[in-house]
Parts: sequence; structure tokens; C-alpha cells
Amino acid sequence: MYHPTPATTPSRLAERARYDAETVHAILDEALIGHLAFVADDRPQLLPMLFVRCGSTLYLHGSTGQHPARMAARRGGLDVAFEVTLVDALVLARSAFHHSANYRAVVAHGRATVVADEDEKRRVLDELMDKLVPGRVGDARGPASDELRQTAVLALPLVEVSAKVRTGDPADDDEDLGRPTWAGLLPLTSGRGVPVPAADLAAGIALPAYLAGDRS
Amino acid sequence: MYHPTPATTPSRLAERARYDAETVHAILDEALIGHLAFVADDRPQLLPMLFVRCGSTLYLHGSTGQHPARMAARRGGLDVAFEVTLVDALVLARSAFHHSANYRAVVAHGRATVVADEDEKRRVLDELMDKLVPGRVGDARGPASDELRQTAVLALPLVEVSAKVRTGDPADDDEDLGRPTWAGLLPLTSGRGVPVPAADLAAGIALPAYLAGDRS
Repeated sequence: MYHPTPATTPSRLAERARYDAETVHAILDEALIGHLAFVADDRPQLLPMLFVRCGSTLYLHGSTGQHPARMAARRGGLDVAFEVTLVDALVLARSAFHHSANYRAVVAHGRATVVADEDEKRRVLDELMDKLVPGRVGDARGPASDELRQTAVLALPLVEVSAKVRTGDPADDDEDLGRPTWAGLLPLTSGRGVPVPAADLAAGIALPAYLAGDRS
Repeated sequence: MYHPTPATTPSRLAERARYDAETVHAILDEALIGHLAFVADDRPQLLPMLFVRCGSTLYLHGSTGQHPARMAARRGGLDVAFEVTLVDALVLARSAFHHSANYRAVVAHGRATVVADEDEKRRVLDELMDKLVPGRVGDARGPASDELRQTAVLALPLVEVSAKVRTGDPADDDEDLGRPTWAGLLPLTSGRGVPVPAADLAAGIALPAYLAGDRS
């Protein structure tokens, strides 16, 4: 269970807030990318990033040339907000006003720091690969030391974190229920398609079993 | 054609940057949600938002109770960054280091202002509905004046804006090309599922033609 703070207490729709680790972690583990917000030159900035959760820490994957990594390295940390959003359905109400979306989102606030330890970096990158493409760790060539040095991993402890979840049907006003307008959910789907071999893939290299699974 | 500024000139991978309106607009028109970054209490904040592009303006849809709308109303505008990201494929290289993602992203920086004019707000909300569910405008009950007052629309002119696009195969190092590791693209798909009627939908209301189209 995480604990609400002013930054993670919604200004509205408080009934959608969730603080239990199970909900927060499940959303983070399902989402492929998140968005990192930070302040540079007094202006808000944001970047999409791949990431992986290990226990109660988020690890954000970037390059040492990117602003957040450079700023975090120089200052010993960088104040950030990190957000992921999964949209499950469009909610079609009888009134335009009550149209909505069913979604699961997580936002984490805190100070991101650079992961300097080479072993920790290696472990995190393996975890990230395992999240994105289960089974591929050990098949691809692991990072050399100079490659590790070009890869920036930022660690963000999950302390000030919350989820926001909307599920279920449209919430129309009673006086609109008699309208002859169709109402319900329009599910949004996501999945993985058929793998496409690289143009320069050598003949005879078969699609590995971990990529040949069911399409969803 | 948009013009690069320091905020929209990437610190790395400059070859992925695009400034032509066609590319920028196509990404914005395809994406359902974007992320809004702003600064409040000296801390970076971000929120997912539905939005629609009309010409060279982004309109962000929220509630008058949300922080960005309240801050923009109080101050006559709010400095923001707005980002959308579409991830098309995971890029599987022979080396862990060259793993990547094919994506299309847009970031816009600028000052968001509150749309106060009721007619403009109505028009923007119709455009948003038409983007999200083509054909539904006119079927749902339009917003009453008090509903319009509870709906916040922020306008962000597209001036300081750029796209970043990665396409194509993994870019492995020459010395890795002989490895017996499968390499290529793992496409990520998204689409719309079969509409689910609301539990309280009156009998006899058929699924409208605009929702009965091909699933993708």
C-alpha cells in the first residue's frame, strides 16, 4: 500500500484514485512506455521512455546524451513526474458531456537518480528486455562496457505514487436515459502482430519460439 | 512547415526530427491521448488528456476543476509541453544495445490558454467527438450551457512543435551481423473491439451504423 500525499491526491474524481501496490504495479508492468516530465530552463519538458519496475523502484531507460540523464548526473538527482496511461475503452454516453474513457493510469513523483553501478545497470537492462520481449535475454548479445556507459538508467523510487482507474458503463443523467441514443463501451484493443525479419537477416535463422506465440 | 527552436531541436538523434506540418499533423490526428506537462509549486506535473487538432491549434479537453485549467484561467495562460507518442514496433537487434522502438512522436511547447467563448468551445467539442467516434456528433445530446461551463478547453497554438520518427530495421554493428540471433521488427497493433451496450440501454436501440464498421 502506498500513501497519499498532496501531489497524489486528485483535485477531482477522488473515487477513481487507488493506492494499493497490486493495482499500481499491474498497470506499470503492462504499460510499454511512460512519459517523464521535468523542468529545464524553468520550462516544463517531457519525454516518452521505456521503463521497467523492479520491486518498488521504476527504472527509466534512456541515453546519457538526453537532458534528464545529464541533469540528474550533474545535480545528483532530478525532480520528475512519471506517468503511464492505458486506455481500455471509449465510454459513449447519451449526452456529449458524459462521454469519457475507461483507463488505468499511474503517476509517480520523486527524485530520479542515475544508476552508476555497472552490475545494477546490467540487471535492470535484462529485466527491461524480459518485460518487453520475454525469452529474448540470453539470445541477443549482452551489452559491452562501452555500450553500458552510453546507456543511462534512471532510478525512481515508488514512494509518492498513485493510480487512477475508471471502469464500467457511462454515467448518464436520469433525464437522458430515455433518449434513443446508443450508449455503451467501445473497447480499444492492443496487441502484437506477426514478426517481420530484418532485410539483412541471414538465411536459415528461424523465428525463435518466444516470438512465435499466439497473437493477441 | 514548422521551424526548429532550441526547445524542439533534439539533443541527440537529430536525423529523427521532422518539422513538416503533414507529418506533425498526421501523428496528432491519429493519437487518442496525449500528455500535458506543466509546473506547479515548482514541481513537474503531468496529466493524460484527450485532444483534437483544428488547423494549427491543439485543443486539450479537461475539466474546470483540474489544475492546468485553474492555473491557466488565473494567470491568463500556462506554459506547457504536450506530447503524443505512437509506438509502431519493437526493434529487435542482434545486440541488446541496439534494441529500439519504431515510434512517431510529437512534442509541442507553448502557452496554453482557456477557451472562454461558448461557441468556440461547442465547435471544438464537436470536433473532438468527431475525431474519437466519427459519426456520433448529432446522435448524442449536445452540451447544455452549464455543462459547457464545467468543461475546460485549453488552446495551444502549434508554433514550437516537432515530430520525432523512427522507422525501419534494427541498426546492428557490422561485427554482430553474423550472429545466429533472429533480428527484425515486432509490430505493435491497436484497434477497436466490438461495442458493448450499456447495462441500462433500452431495448430496441440498435447499434448505429457508425459503430458497426470493420474492426481493425
